[in-house]
Formats: sequence, C-alpha cells, structure tokens
Amino acid sequence: MAANIHDVFMLFGDSITEGAWAPGVNGFGQRLSHAYVRKLDVLNRGFSGYNTEWALPVFEQCIAKSDNKYAPKIRVLAIWFGANDSCIKPSPQHVPLEKYISNLKQMVNMIKSPESPRYSPETRIILITPPPINTIVWKADLESRDPPAELDRFFDVTKSYAEAVKDIAREEGVAVVDIWTALWEAAGKEENGLTKVLGDGLHLNEAGYASSSHMEHVGQILYDELIKTIAKDYPEVHYDNIASVFPGWKDIDWENPAKSLYVFKGE
Amino acid sequence: MAANIHDVFMLFGDSITEGAWAPGVNGFGQRLSHAYVRKLDVLNRGFSGYNTEWALPVFEQCIAKSDNKYAPKIRVLAIWFGANDSCIKPSPQHVPLEKYISNLKQMVNMIKSPESPRYSPETRIILITPPPINTIVWKADLESRDPPAELDRFFDVTKSYAEAVKDIAREEGVAVVDIWTALWEAAGKEENGLTKVLGDGLHLNEAGYASSSHMEHVGQILYDELIKTIAKDYPEVHYDNIASVFPGWKDIDWENPAKSLYVFKGE
Repeated sequence: MAANIHDVFMLFGDSITEGAWAPGVNGFGQRLSHAYVRKLDVLNRGFSGYNTEWALPVFEQCIAKSDNKYAPKIRVLAIWFGANDSCIKPSPQHVPLEKYISNLKQMVNMIKSPESPRYSPETRIILITPPPINTIVWKADLESRDPPAELDRFFDVTKSYAEAVKDIAREEGVAVVDIWTALWEAAGKEENGLTKVLGDGLHLNEAGYASSSHMEHVGQILYDELIKTIAKDYPEVHYDNIASVFPGWKDIDWENPAKSLYVFKGE
Repeated sequence: MAANIHDVFMLFGDSITEGAWAPGVNGFGQRLSHAYVRKLDVLNRGFSGYNTEWALPVFEQCIAKSDNKYAPKIRVLAIWFGANDSCIKPSPQHVPLEKYISNLKQMVNMIKSPESPRYSPETRIILITPPPINTIVWKADLESRDPPAELDRFFDVTKSYAEAVKDIAREEGVAVVDIWTALWEAAGKEENGLTKVLGDGLHLNEAGYASSSHMEHVGQILYDELIKTIAKDYPEVHYDNIASVFPGWKDIDWENPAKSLYVFKGE
C-alpha cells in the first residue's frame, strides 16, 4: 500500500489534461510533476472527450469526503473543461452554455461550500478557460476521417464558453487562467495563426503546452500562465514556498541518519 | 481530499528517478505516467543523492501497513539504487557492497515477507541495476566544480554493484531490468561511447531514458527495457492489461450518463 506522504495537485479536465504528460510535447502536467517533485503529487484526472455533464459524477468520486482522515489533501485543484461542452448540436458532447456554467459552479461548490460533504477550505481552485478553436484545421481533420465528420465546434461559440469561465471565477472568488486569450494573442489574433499553438486545431501542441525547441518565442504558454497565476493568487502553494517532505541528502545527519529521516511519526 | 481511485506504480530511487519527469528528456517516469493514464498513478519517490542506507527509513514511510484499508494498492514497485552507494570512500554516500545488498533485500522483504507489517503479495517488484559510469566525463565534471572534487566513482566498482542487483533478483524471485548492460551495449562497450546515453557521465540523458529526436537509434532504452520486463515477467500489470477506471466517452450511456459513471459505490 502506498502511504500518504505527499499532498496533491490535481488536474481535472478533458483530453487536453489527459495528454499533458505525452512524450515530445513537454505538457503542463509533466512540467508540474517536475516542479513539485518531493513536494506534491501531481495527479492526472483528465478524461478524453468528457464534457462537464459526464465529468460531474466522476469529480464527485475523485474527491474524498472531508471526514476521511486518511486521504491526501488537495492543495491545488485545476479544473479545465469547455473544449467539448462547446461542441455544437447534434454532437453528443454538446452542453448548453447555461448548463456548463452551472456544472462548473457545482464542482467549485463541492469544494468551497461549508455545507458540502467534500468541503475543503485549504484547496486552492484554478479554473482554466477552454482554448480557442482553429476551425480551418479542425474542419480538415474531421473531413479526412472515415467516415468524414461535420465541423462540430465554432470559433465564437468556444469564445463565449471561455468568457463564461472568467465570469464564474470572478463570482466564486477563485483564480482563473485565461488560456483562450493567451493562445489567441500568441496567434497574433488570427485563426490561421493558431497553427503555432494547436496541433490539430483543437489540442495544444508543445508550444501551447510548454516550451518547444523550435518555437522558443511562443513557448511555455500554459505552464507559464499557470505558475504566474499561482504566484499572484496563491503564493503559499507555489513550488518555491512548499518544503520537500524528506531532507536533501546533504542535510541528512550522516552520523545518525534515522534521526533526520523519520519525518512521519506514529504510523 | 483526493479519493483513492487509482492503484499505484511507484518508482523508488535516487536522482535518476527524481529527474525522470524533467522537461526535454522524455524520461521513463513521464513515459510511464502517459502509458498508465486513467489506470495507475505513477508516483515519483526519487531522492537525489540518497544511497540505500538513507533510503531505507524513507521507504518504510512510503509504504503503508497492510491493515490500512484506505491506502492505494501498489501494483508495481521499481527499486533503483546503486549510483550513489557505489561511490568510493571517503564519499559520505559510499555504502559497502555487502550492506548495499542487505539493504536492498530488506526493502524487497518489507513487501514480500508474510511476517512484514507491510506485506503486499499483489505488489510486483522490479529491481533496476545502477547505470555504468563514464569516469572520463564525470571526472571532468567534478574537477570543474568550485571547489574541485576528486573522482568518486569507478567503472568496475559500479559494475560490481550492478552484478549484485541481478543476484538479489534471482535469489528473491523478483524481476530485474539490467540497465547497466543495456546502456553498456548501446555504448558499443566503450566508456567513451557512454556519452551517447549519459549526459554528465552519471545521469541518463534523453537517449538513456527514452526516445530522443536526434538519437533515434539509441532511443527509449530504459523505458523499453522496463516495459519488456513487465510484458515478460508481470503481464498482468502491463498497461494493455489494466482497464481504465472510468469509461471512454463513447462508452458512456448518453441517455443516462450517471448509470455508467458511478464506478465507486458506497463511499
């Protein structure tokens, strides 16, 4: 059995979260795992294709009840949906904007409301807006499939879902990373320019996620925005402000190592 | 609180484990996180500079007792030490070969012995041999430091620690990944050739860890060896043989999503 030695940084989202450790893209999940090593476990709770309607029951199961004293604390929780909710009808992934808003609020309140059985006042919540969609590239991708599919996402629709996330963050008093705007600006505010940051028109490539050897100028967008937001809104959970659980090897008492190495008493 | 929804793949080791999610190297930790996504949480329990003597009390704290029914099961446990134990005197990291062997056996038996309070018969253990050392490059690295340091590792000494790990695996009946030999063969069995797989002479670079865009022929060594070993010795924990905890989005009952999405009953 794995003992609970680290608190948790949980990334809850769709495929753009699920793929955030993929080889070759230096995704934001991988970057966070490295930055928080020996401090927090970064848990991938990404579910490809999911919208907030399907994610809500999953979220409930990913969060332990407050009276469970054995479960690790969630110090940071990033919630990132909308890329699928903003599909247009008749896509089964479509969730109407009002419902999307109320689903996200339900997630936030499952953590923030003192009446919730999953109330966790020490959890710092960060909402992430859906990224913009490059309909030109995404349409070509869908049309090349077998059988070919119709365009299922519109630029302005996704934008309205992103705007809604910023409103929710303001209303609920939680932090927000507006990756929609950050990527849009990196694209020079032109849909064609989004090829720089979105591989297939929908999913972030290495430049969108993090650093990229051949696109240094665009690089690190999401990871940098997230770390900037933590530094500004929740400095207490910035990796620089969380101590390693076990000592560095030069801080071990070499004459009597056990003395400095038994960090957990009792259990 | 983070609910215990996934079993665990634990990587317990020194700096070569701690750095296995670093940007740009496609390390084996990152690769495993991606391969086991939605199946197992891959936990980084790497401790830079640690030898088995210091790691032993830490290991004890990382493993929950068998009667803790709230802790996640460890399905796979990789144990990888020796790069520091094999330092030569007067390095404080030096652990004599016999002590190194008994420390590793103690770790294995903490899991495998029915008398141990941390007995876990379902945990599949994989020992990894220390990598070879390129003393030419490592010596230059140490001499360039301020203050300069003396060479603290010898090629043949590290080799004898690697040999010992293979003996322990045979005696204890657990799997082994002989990365010493795999890297040595990739180096054309020449110490100078190790520059292809060890960045600073001690730590694996991208080719040693996993795939590399500019060294495709060497690429993926450790990750591939590990996955090969799992397929051969413990196929039941190969990622292809473990089901995702939550359904794929196309398998959700869209008319009645809650029905297919409540995977955990009760709690």
